[in-house]
Amino acid sequence: MYAFPSHKAVSITTSDETPPSDIPHLLVLRPLSDAWLSALNAKFTLISPSSPLSASVHAALISGAYNRVDPALLDQYPSLRCLVNTGAGVNHINFEECKRRGVQVANVGETHSRNVADYAVGLLIDVMRRITMSDRYVRNGLWVTQGNYPLGSKLGGKRVGIVGLGSIGSAIAKRLEAFGCKISYLSTKPKPTVSYRYIPNICDMAAESDILVVSCSLTKETHHIVNKKVLQALGKEGIIINIGRGANIDEPELVRCLVQGEIKGAGLDVFECEPNIPKESIELENVVLTPHQSVFTPEAMAEVIQICIANFEAFFAGKPLITPVVAD
Amino acid sequence: MYAFPSHKAVSITTSDETPPSDIPHLLVLRPLSDAWLSALNAKFTLISPSSPLSASVHAALISGAYNRVDPALLDQYPSLRCLVNTGAGVNHINFEECKRRGVQVANVGETHSRNVADYAVGLLIDVMRRITMSDRYVRNGLWVTQGNYPLGSKLGGKRVGIVGLGSIGSAIAKRLEAFGCKISYLSTKPKPTVSYRYIPNICDMAAESDILVVSCSLTKETHHIVNKKVLQALGKEGIIINIGRGANIDEPELVRCLVQGEIKGAGLDVFECEPNIPKESIELENVVLTPHQSVFTPEAMAEVIQICIANFEAFFAGKPLITPVVAD
Repeated sequence: MYAFPSHKAVSITTSDETPPSDIPHLLVLRPLSDAWLSALNAKFTLISPSSPLSASVHAALISGAYNRVDPALLDQYPSLRCLVNTGAGVNHINFEECKRRGVQVANVGETHSRNVADYAVGLLIDVMRRITMSDRYVRNGLWVTQGNYPLGSKLGGKRVGIVGLGSIGSAIAKRLEAFGCKISYLSTKPKPTVSYRYIPNICDMAAESDILVVSCSLTKETHHIVNKKVLQALGKEGIIINIGRGANIDEPELVRCLVQGEIKGAGLDVFECEPNIPKESIELENVVLTPHQSVFTPEAMAEVIQICIANFEAFFAGKPLITPVVAD
Repeated sequence: MYAFPSHKAVSITTSDETPPSDIPHLLVLRPLSDAWLSALNAKFTLISPSSPLSASVHAALISGAYNRVDPALLDQYPSLRCLVNTGAGVNHINFEECKRRGVQVANVGETHSRNVADYAVGLLIDVMRRITMSDRYVRNGLWVTQGNYPLGSKLGGKRVGIVGLGSIGSAIAKRLEAFGCKISYLSTKPKPTVSYRYIPNICDMAAESDILVVSCSLTKETHHIVNKKVLQALGKEGIIINIGRGANIDEPELVRCLVQGEIKGAGLDVFECEPNIPKESIELENVVLTPHQSVFTPEAMAEVIQICIANFEAFFAGKPLITPVVAD
């Protein structure tokens, strides 16, 4: 659900000389934009991975787009006790290993969830009501020569199955309720705090849904969780929205279904081999294809920087992290 | 907010001979699709305008796309006492004249409002988060060669000014609340039943809004209600969504502002000279252009037919109309 937007990766211009001891050291394991750099520099002494000081630093800024938090990385920086992850997805982090070594992990809380949920609903309305398709139609001059565009479907009353009711899935559900959709969800276990219908089997959920929204993280269990059987269960009138990870869906099978009309349409912000998308999908009329951008807005970037700093400040003050990752 | 979708206008195959007296006569003043024809034929004897019987019919089906309900039309059918309008807009109906002659008017209630509101929110998210623009970017192969697409803006916390808080505007507000937007509205007078902020002047509202959503009907007072001054008050970061009528906005001025960056973006489903759109808009990246389709879905068509029939049945039974137009 998160890829850091392209920007000039600014190299960290830290000194390798011993910095003043009263400013906490922060290991930076991802590229930083100017906004990041100036905000972090104001609070911390930034240490690059190539610095000899890196082996003794207690806290690090990480990102799933650049880092895999596994025993090899943790061995390399044995003093680490706090990781703050700038993304929404956490599939790059080995939590068991972190726990075993006493490494706390935070991510950026609800900031990403709301952005991703807004985007998921936007993609869904777009596909259902054919906004992107009809914009193309109008720009190509076809409204004048061929009349109205074929109608899209009504959102109200539709059965939406949400694959993964974490903070993103929950935010999507909350929004879709305002449109009169009927929500059900798939999760590792039922959530006692929600009133939506829990369906423990994804094929059952697909069969009883008009729309599937994929909003789970990518794990061994959720790799290709939407496969041929699920797509068949969803059926010819079904629509899929994916703002999770590309590999949550068997992509070649999805494309085949879309080409052959075995499902009705899709809104895809993520793909298995980004930035490459399946060639056949480019010609499809019933699909909206966007470049993994559901999570990020300029407003969110400012918020994310502040949340990361607040987590590090809490850590260095010996207090609990502000937005710890709660293992599901 | 409503234009009947293109379809083969089926001519009404009514007999000019006197039909059985126990089946109510219904004057049909708009083209009918097969679905309309078979549903209406099952309940009524359909009378075409060219039939000699038309002058004595008490009830008629009308549409703003085909009829102007003015003294000339009412003189032509002096026996009319009930009009059922299949659209959402009612700017084609002279209500004073109808009232003076004892002609009741119904339209199709909330059916259209929900569809239009869904669409308005879809257009808004699309423009804010750049869905249509980035789909074009991906399809043109630019994600691979040029990297990520410039980011869109966050919806949460944005100030949305709604021009016209009728049933459509209210449904839009309800949906946008779920996204954390701050709602204000312009209306002829404050609505005691809502908690949104009332701003009686559109320039003031534009100045205090990030987004303007035009959802009013088209009257003398709302013609070009969004003019140069309003656009200037909205400013460079402002976004406009129009699902009302094209002529609610001074279209050349809007296009000039979009071209020159004096406002940030727009989502337009309606235009002043449909199906023609302003030539310059076709090249604009910051605009989503759709062919006046916010109101209609196949599901809604079935609902609309049923609501119209229910209104006529109530009228012929001497009961109050089911969904009378309430003059504001």
